[in-house]
Amino acid sequence: MSRTVIHGGLVITASDEIHADVLVEGGRVAALAAHGTDAAAGWTAERRIDATGKYVIPGGVDAHTHMEMPFGGTLASDTFETGSRAAAWGGTTTFVDFAIQPRGGSLREGLDTWHAKADGQCAVDYAFHMIMSDVNESSLREMDKLVSLGISSFKLFTAYPGVFLSDDGQILRAMQRAASNGGLVMTHAENGLAIDVLVEQALARGERDPRYHGEVRKALLEAEATHRVIRLSQVAGAPVYVVHVSAREAVAELARARDEGLPVFGETCPQYLFLSTDNLAEPDFEGAKYVCSTPLRPKDHQEALWRGLRTNDLQVVSTDHCPFCFKGQKELGRDDFSKIPNGMPGVENRMDLLHQAVVDGHISRRRWIEIACATPARMFGLYPKKGTITPGADADIVVYDPHAEQVISAETHHMNVDYSAYEGKRVTGRVETVLSRGVPVIEERTYVGHAGHGAYVPRGICQYTN
Amino acid sequence: MSRTVIHGGLVITASDEIHADVLVEGGRVAALAAHGTDAAAGWTAERRIDATGKYVIPGGVDAHTHMEMPFGGTLASDTFETGSRAAAWGGTTTFVDFAIQPRGGSLREGLDTWHAKADGQCAVDYAFHMIMSDVNESSLREMDKLVSLGISSFKLFTAYPGVFLSDDGQILRAMQRAASNGGLVMTHAENGLAIDVLVEQALARGERDPRYHGEVRKALLEAEATHRVIRLSQVAGAPVYVVHVSAREAVAELARARDEGLPVFGETCPQYLFLSTDNLAEPDFEGAKYVCSTPLRPKDHQEALWRGLRTNDLQVVSTDHCPFCFKGQKELGRDDFSKIPNGMPGVENRMDLLHQAVVDGHISRRRWIEIACATPARMFGLYPKKGTITPGADADIVVYDPHAEQVISAETHHMNVDYSAYEGKRVTGRVETVLSRGVPVIEERTYVGHAGHGAYVPRGICQYTN
Amino acid sequence: MSRTVIHGGLVITASDEIHADVLVEGGRVAALAAHGTDAAAGWTAERRIDATGKYVIPGGVDAHTHMEMPFGGTLASDTFETGSRAAAWGGTTTFVDFAIQPRGGSLREGLDTWHAKADGQCAVDYAFHMIMSDVNESSLREMDKLVSLGISSFKLFTAYPGVFLSDDGQILRAMQRAASNGGLVMTHAENGLAIDVLVEQALARGERDPRYHGEVRKALLEAEATHRVIRLSQVAGAPVYVVHVSAREAVAELARARDEGLPVFGETCPQYLFLSTDNLAEPDFEGAKYVCSTPLRPKDHQEALWRGLRTNDLQVVSTDHCPFCFKGQKELGRDDFSKIPNGMPGVENRMDLLHQAVVDGHISRRRWIEIACATPARMFGLYPKKGTITPGADADIVVYDPHAEQVISAETHHMNVDYSAYEGKRVTGRVETVLSRGVPVIEERTYVGHAGHGAYVPRGICQYTN
Amino acid sequence: MSRTVIHGGLVITASDEIHADVLVEGGRVAALAAHGTDAAAGWTAERRIDATGKYVIPGGVDAHTHMEMPFGGTLASDTFETGSRAAAWGGTTTFVDFAIQPRGGSLREGLDTWHAKADGQCAVDYAFHMIMSDVNESSLREMDKLVSLGISSFKLFTAYPGVFLSDDGQILRAMQRAASNGGLVMTHAENGLAIDVLVEQALARGERDPRYHGEVRKALLEAEATHRVIRLSQVAGAPVYVVHVSAREAVAELARARDEGLPVFGETCPQYLFLSTDNLAEPDFEGAKYVCSTPLRPKDHQEALWRGLRTNDLQVVSTDHCPFCFKGQKELGRDDFSKIPNGMPGVENRMDLLHQAVVDGHISRRRWIEIACATPARMFGLYPKKGTITPGADADIVVYDPHAEQVISAETHHMNVDYSAYEGKRVTGRVETVLSRGVPVIEERTYVGHAGHGAYVPRGICQYTN
Repeated sequence: MSRTVIHGGLVITASDEIHADVLVEGGRVAALAAHGTDAAAGWTAERRIDATGKYVIPGGVDAHTHMEMPFGGTLASDTFETGSRAAAWGGTTTFVDFAIQPRGGSLREGLDTWHAKADGQCAVDYAFHMIMSDVNESSLREMDKLVSLGISSFKLFTAYPGVFLSDDGQILRAMQRAASNGGLVMTHAENGLAIDVLVEQALARGERDPRYHGEVRKALLEAEATHRVIRLSQVAGAPVYVVHVSAREAVAELARARDEGLPVFGETCPQYLFLSTDNLAEPDFEGAKYVCSTPLRPKDHQEALWRGLRTNDLQVVSTDHCPFCFKGQKELGRDDFSKIPNGMPGVENRMDLLHQAVVDGHISRRRWIEIACATPARMFGLYPKKGTITPGADADIVVYDPHAEQVISAETHHMNVDYSAYEGKRVTGRVETVLSRGVPVIEERTYVGHAGHGAYVPRGICQYTN
Repeated sequence: MSRTVIHGGLVITASDEIHADVLVEGGRVAALAAHGTDAAAGWTAERRIDATGKYVIPGGVDAHTHMEMPFGGTLASDTFETGSRAAAWGGTTTFVDFAIQPRGGSLREGLDTWHAKADGQCAVDYAFHMIMSDVNESSLREMDKLVSLGISSFKLFTAYPGVFLSDDGQILRAMQRAASNGGLVMTHAENGLAIDVLVEQALARGERDPRYHGEVRKALLEAEATHRVIRLSQVAGAPVYVVHVSAREAVAELARARDEGLPVFGETCPQYLFLSTDNLAEPDFEGAKYVCSTPLRPKDHQEALWRGLRTNDLQVVSTDHCPFCFKGQKELGRDDFSKIPNGMPGVENRMDLLHQAVVDGHISRRRWIEIACATPARMFGLYPKKGTITPGADADIVVYDPHAEQVISAETHHMNVDYSAYEGKRVTGRVETVLSRGVPVIEERTYVGHAGHGAYVPRGICQYTN
Repeated sequence: MSRTVIHGGLVITASDEIHADVLVEGGRVAALAAHGTDAAAGWTAERRIDATGKYVIPGGVDAHTHMEMPFGGTLASDTFETGSRAAAWGGTTTFVDFAIQPRGGSLREGLDTWHAKADGQCAVDYAFHMIMSDVNESSLREMDKLVSLGISSFKLFTAYPGVFLSDDGQILRAMQRAASNGGLVMTHAENGLAIDVLVEQALARGERDPRYHGEVRKALLEAEATHRVIRLSQVAGAPVYVVHVSAREAVAELARARDEGLPVFGETCPQYLFLSTDNLAEPDFEGAKYVCSTPLRPKDHQEALWRGLRTNDLQVVSTDHCPFCFKGQKELGRDDFSKIPNGMPGVENRMDLLHQAVVDGHISRRRWIEIACATPARMFGLYPKKGTITPGADADIVVYDPHAEQVISAETHHMNVDYSAYEGKRVTGRVETVLSRGVPVIEERTYVGHAGHGAYVPRGICQYTN
Repeated sequence: MSRTVIHGGLVITASDEIHADVLVEGGRVAALAAHGTDAAAGWTAERRIDATGKYVIPGGVDAHTHMEMPFGGTLASDTFETGSRAAAWGGTTTFVDFAIQPRGGSLREGLDTWHAKADGQCAVDYAFHMIMSDVNESSLREMDKLVSLGISSFKLFTAYPGVFLSDDGQILRAMQRAASNGGLVMTHAENGLAIDVLVEQALARGERDPRYHGEVRKALLEAEATHRVIRLSQVAGAPVYVVHVSAREAVAELARARDEGLPVFGETCPQYLFLSTDNLAEPDFEGAKYVCSTPLRPKDHQEALWRGLRTNDLQVVSTDHCPFCFKGQKELGRDDFSKIPNGMPGVENRMDLLHQAVVDGHISRRRWIEIACATPARMFGLYPKKGTITPGADADIVVYDPHAEQVISAETHHMNVDYSAYEGKRVTGRVETVLSRGVPVIEERTYVGHAGHGAYVPRGICQYTN
């Protein structure tokens, strides 16, 4: 069994910061030893990685991506191959993508389609959530089977009427089923029926620019739906995980529910933490680059999100990575904001942006690892295999240089999309080396991985009860 | 012009308790004078009513009745004739009934039908709200017209899918229209889609007794819908009035919104204040007598309702009078609680029950008149014509004996229904004499009115802005 | 008995707006009759006041004044004579001043001193609260006696250590006593011990200008003390009335307590509604004009106060009238903000400023009368003698011209102070004529009253229970 | 350097549960290796502890003890020797005791006294907080020095007037100083001035039994003081840690502040989680055994405390160990509950009782370790030296048998007190073996330690910023 030692670095996990050497045997972390001890000194290994002056952190877990996702007649521009490679470049070694049940079809059918897309393509490990587009007796029954196959989370929408929206009765049924089989219902929480009225009215008034996307998808309508799914989950006796929380008012609903002791969870994304409606208002249709749903919010919502991350009213930062090229894709909505494909690239930038948040004082180093690695892994049944560095865990390890500076740019990024949402942003910190199950994927900023190394990871159930 | 003087009583309005004589000229209150002044002593009148030792109060305004309402293949058992007469017996001189837009038809059509039912039948004055069963471009436009005709309030349902339920987009549109034309949207706030799931599951488990009606229509699902309509109204920039609030958690949502300064209003009903799920659980199908929606709640919700009435988080007590006989009507649901016609009698009992609440110390005398007369009149554009005793107001006046005792019973009540929800309840206080626009309808507990005296009253718009 | 008729105006009370004529017999309102009725037409009177196009409103009740109050070695510059005359000019016909128990002395001693100051001096009626500077067994016992004498409210301070501050044990004892004798405890709620630390530190840093007065008396320390006195009152089972609420955070504490159904009340003052820390920061020591405690707050607190007045989380607007001349008095603190006498003039401006709030859309006309006349009268046991226009009430009546414009200025005001806090402010609305118990004090903007007309009014107990 | 291997157990820390072997070199944890790996297999050691089927957990950190504390003329019955030995028996390897500044004396003086008491006496490691009885310029300055000596937390009281109480100005000053030097202010939060009034009144009514101790120290007065110290800390810009939180309403204040993002922390104790006013009401003066302050609360407060521990609104469970024998000590208050020495034994029972909470489903295993070991260590600057098992940490390790059953009893416990507060309580789980810095103190339930092994541990500063 091949052995690797990573020595001299500061090992940072969600719980600890220790000067320790890490011994990898095969694909697993075999041991940690305090740096300088006899125990550490005694290790022999084929490969020794010097992490002196660097951080040794768990590979990132991005719990929300959409590779090759169909949307409005086009496909998200990253394939599993390009997207997973970009993830690796950004220090993310596990991502959870969303398989989609076709309307009128089965969950299994959707899952098979996504397995086919991903199989043999990925640079790093991956797993699946299941989007339920059609909640009915048959698909409800299928949920049990999927949980047993390691697909233990199910996304439902209160938005996108006619496409993804489930009505409240359907959502309740899915939550009840999840309560009985250990599944976790994830929700896109916006009141889509009300939003569609506002979209229609805005277009009728001639409001067609991207910035109107932000105006019609009101914060109050995100908060409303957030409250609604919380109460439905309470009736069902099930936990609920709200994806891509962007509005201050929605965070308040989560906080209120958590104070009541309910098992309610919230995810936000880097775009909500670093971007705002100012970006949506960029001229010459540039705002389209920032069209995603929930939408970017006015800048003063950011503080509520940071606070939520600090108070643990928000637990996870994922990317909702769903890139569409500006040319040819975003442009589909040049005359009508409602036709702009919803989504932004980001899988490569998350770990760096959140490290920048450490530098900026928003969160601590340990909290960085917690929201980006450990908690998503626990939330979706991957911990401690993923999300931490501890004896027995998968050796998904990143050597991170906390002092290197870089400028984010489409010219240098590895995502298959023609723009960066953070173009020109200077950040401190950079991924140096990435191991996936002990195997180097990035080695001193050179890609040494290959499509197919990344394996499908069946997941256990959510490890939180509150 | 005929003149009446009511002398020697304690005139109680929402704002004042004064020892004053009241002069009625024609149908109006002409003057009030302090008892014993020269001014009072100088009045001459054809009719003098001695109110010494009695209260002189405004006739009650019941803002929520359903005479002859079709429900589940049967009709509410009180006609406008029998119901309005019972109202008079109970000291209520104005009631606002709900005209219903037929699905696929116009508001006007519904209104005409209800006018036809009521015309020439009523013992006391009446007005109409409009139930919107079908929100569409045409019915939205019609709302403006109806406001101008004195139908300034529109009820929408988040409950009863397939019958009355409007989706959130429709509710938003109606609220937007109301925001522009001065109309007031009233909502029946329960999450009907979720409730229908629970109904189906309860029946599948063999839970068929009336008490399950109370279990499936969960307090949390009332609170959820209450919150939802509040946020939709906030998006629309419109006020909202939530009918028949019964759950503690729903009161909390109203309180929260009102603390934020939103123009949000709540009504409760005597059944929620005096009855509970204990009644729904009465054996031998007797529980069916208490089936209404929102349902009765466990007893400990009552304190929250009383507190809400004291803190003005609830503003109005109406009856939701919608009687169905136990024999032949309630019995339709003997084997399936979901088939029990929803509704209870009460139009005759409201003023007495609320006076009992004064005796019991829940509310003050002035608050009794405020929640039962003045506020409903203001809320629905009838004040000060209705709801108070002041110069210029309609002379709808009740002489009330605060010391008389009575026992509520189906044997003695005047509603056309074979049971009383308060059978055997002893209360202190009794209506002695009732004037409607100066004309005696009840005179020392004898009915001296006649069908057709009561006139349709076109209403102005809601007089509250918060 | 002399008779006066005020005819043709719009009578506005807290509850009603009616076109009615008012008949005054002796010092009382004998009757109201709808304008144009036979009843009204039949009235004969020595004096007829034409109020056509005008408002006919109750005389204002200012529940918080400090005439001739000693503070920091000087005296508030308005005597009972000058101050009460200015009140009349401003449409206020009753004021409640604060008698002060001397430290080491009895309540009675303080009361006698204040009676001596006021007796025979006042243009309009007045009453007293009692400031308790020394809570001990003897003064606690005295409270019962004072309640019976019509001094039914007792002010305690959590501020001004060494001068007025009572400790929490003393406050609790006073509240317990009030709970048993019907008295109402009023509190100046700021954490004076903490503030004194901040004052000392500010001075040590050389921060001596008036604006530092606003900085050291922090909003959080007002909110803290507000919460504290609420909880103490809850333990005592007594109501509590918080004077001069200025901070958003303090309003939030009141709102929270009121949602819980507690009998907790809050007063604010025009200075907090119309002025801000911007005024305190005026150069050349001009900021001293605005030094009062609680202090003026940043402008964005105003919206919370207006909202509190609309939601009834604040119930009363008083002036805390306590004028000190800029020359010679305010100047005592030229080198040390902590030596500036605390207080501002305002008794003459309150009714006008609040009418301006009606014009500006902050409150309705009825709410204007409620917060300025009816509620203070109810709160302090003067209603319906004072605070409304109804048969039997004292004929304290103001004919108010809602269309007249005026500019507030020290040059034209009648308060005995050399500046106006609202200098140059243009407002719409003006007092035309003022009756005090039926006797003209101001007649078409001429002062026709005299010192000694105003009588001491013993008060009943607080008429609110929540 | 001596080496120990603990193998085969489940290592549980606040963050992880892993099947790992632990290598101890000297007094430190040198390495952890996955059980069964070559790395683990290769370790040689003088001592091998077989933990198969057992938990391997960090030694407990009890952040709140009072050994030999003077109270009401007597001394807490455990000396540092007996108390620290009992701690070891209960799996606690570090405790933080409170040195007390004498009134009129210096902090240093108090510290020296406590050092003298503890020096050479302890079986396990210990540290000190400092109680400030006399906040003045000199003692404020001393705080800086103490922080540098490893005494980084300072307890102040809003209770016990005349003994420990600091006024709000003093508390603010201490918090300001802590904000500047990294110290953490701890508060005993009860409104002592108000409580003393209630005590006096209760005694005057002849209420002398122990149960009145619980009645006069009202939950609202704990909540009030909790809110107060939170706001003072907010003004000071400092964190605050509230000791022995027992009331639901106090938890609510903490939750509210934490939702606002404030660095506010709360500790509760086993007695509040497992005992109630029912115990205080035990007859024959037995209730005296349960007299401590804050007092035990009615049983229904327990659920709020458990919820607070789950939602992290409470972060730490300490014992407030302060035993007084029933005979001779508690009996001092036989005729007057206010004379009963305040305090209860518990240092030996905490880890077991909290494990029972795991068994009962209140908290997870990791949360057990978090609230009992990791968080107190972080809170008081001892982590990761204490509170976890990780390379580099002190080898304070407990082998815990999760299946063993025991019955808590004064007959078998090792604390120097003649009763147990949990007499007869059956719990699952038991400490088997305890290492303190690698040295066995308890070995398979035999005490093998000695007085003087335990060393004073200077502490760093609080590691939380929110």
